[in-house]
Amino acid sequence: MIKAGVPARPRSRGRAGRRPGGPDTRGEILSAARAEFAERAYDRASIRAIAGRAGVDPALVHHYFGTKEQLFLEAMELPFSPPDVAGEILTGPLDGAGERAVRTFFAVWGDPVRRTPILAMLRSAMSNEAAATLLRQFARRSILSRVVAGLDLPDRELRVEAAVSHLIGLALMRYVIKLEPLASIPDDELVVLVGPVIQHYFDA
Amino acid sequence: MIKAGVPARPRSRGRAGRRPGGPDTRGEILSAARAEFAERAYDRASIRAIAGRAGVDPALVHHYFGTKEQLFLEAMELPFSPPDVAGEILTGPLDGAGERAVRTFFAVWGDPVRRTPILAMLRSAMSNEAAATLLRQFARRSILSRVVAGLDLPDRELRVEAAVSHLIGLALMRYVIKLEPLASIPDDELVVLVGPVIQHYFDA
Repeated sequence: MIKAGVPARPRSRGRAGRRPGGPDTRGEILSAARAEFAERAYDRASIRAIAGRAGVDPALVHHYFGTKEQLFLEAMELPFSPPDVAGEILTGPLDGAGERAVRTFFAVWGDPVRRTPILAMLRSAMSNEAAATLLRQFARRSILSRVVAGLDLPDRELRVEAAVSHLIGLALMRYVIKLEPLASIPDDELVVLVGPVIQHYFDA
Repeated sequence: MIKAGVPARPRSRGRAGRRPGGPDTRGEILSAARAEFAERAYDRASIRAIAGRAGVDPALVHHYFGTKEQLFLEAMELPFSPPDVAGEILTGPLDGAGERAVRTFFAVWGDPVRRTPILAMLRSAMSNEAAATLLRQFARRSILSRVVAGLDLPDRELRVEAAVSHLIGLALMRYVIKLEPLASIPDDELVVLVGPVIQHYFDA
């Protein structure tokens, strides 16, 4: 997994019209992306509209950030790569997928710097319908669909969603509610405790 | 499980000193209880201090509300009985405990009126350290300890906490993030999907 770069602090400019990339263009695109995602959620947001908001050519947005998914990850400062996460879970024998899911998930969440922006998204989603829609659409398009596509099981969408719900619940208990002893056991013990349980969702 | 009565709307009064129960005394005790729990969390809050805040005799608080736990449930408008929840999970063969846990949990969460105050507590806990402490202490003292006490398993605290984390994660995905298809399957299907997985935490 890679750490996405920390975006430049956005600032607003009054200037309209397309222009080439300047020193603050990157930050302005990220700021425009945050506005677009907040307003139209993930599925309906577009690079074209984001470029329009920032007053630049869509090609420049692609040049700086790549795909809509990559732009979203940078705009939200999300410190993981969804293809890598899916790959780590799916690569290897299926009967180790439960343990790999727990290990991969907590490799990100166990790091306070990396979990902070994810927790911020979850927190927003809990108190704001639009933020919940954004998180749901991103999670489906970006991570869940990749894991689901790599499995050949009945009810695979339900199973993956149930597995993820367990991991998210564990993260809440460990890092927010801080329920002991669950909050303090090392990740290795968590893998032993939870891995075989998550594995059930990967067994036909 | 029983629905706790909806408390009277609190209003503040300037009067000090102990006095007998009047028409608003119940509401004032509930208001004092909310202040005490918010300030001192669950373990350190006391009926005596709550009575002091409300300017009444502690015996009157006991008379109206019973134990500290019962007062907490009414003050937070939590619409379930922790002894009943624990009883429903623990009563019957251990190899049905997973399914009973899922069924009991979603009988409360599936009802929008009943889940609203629980969700409100969880939401507060996510953005406020004191609220997280309150929720953690209440959950431990009230529900988790009863379920843990009824089990004869190694690592039973960890297992119960992991099981609860799964249920909480599912509730978030179904009722807040609204991830489909998980959000829309009937409770009966959820019991079939998740019950055997939770059961793993109840197997030695």
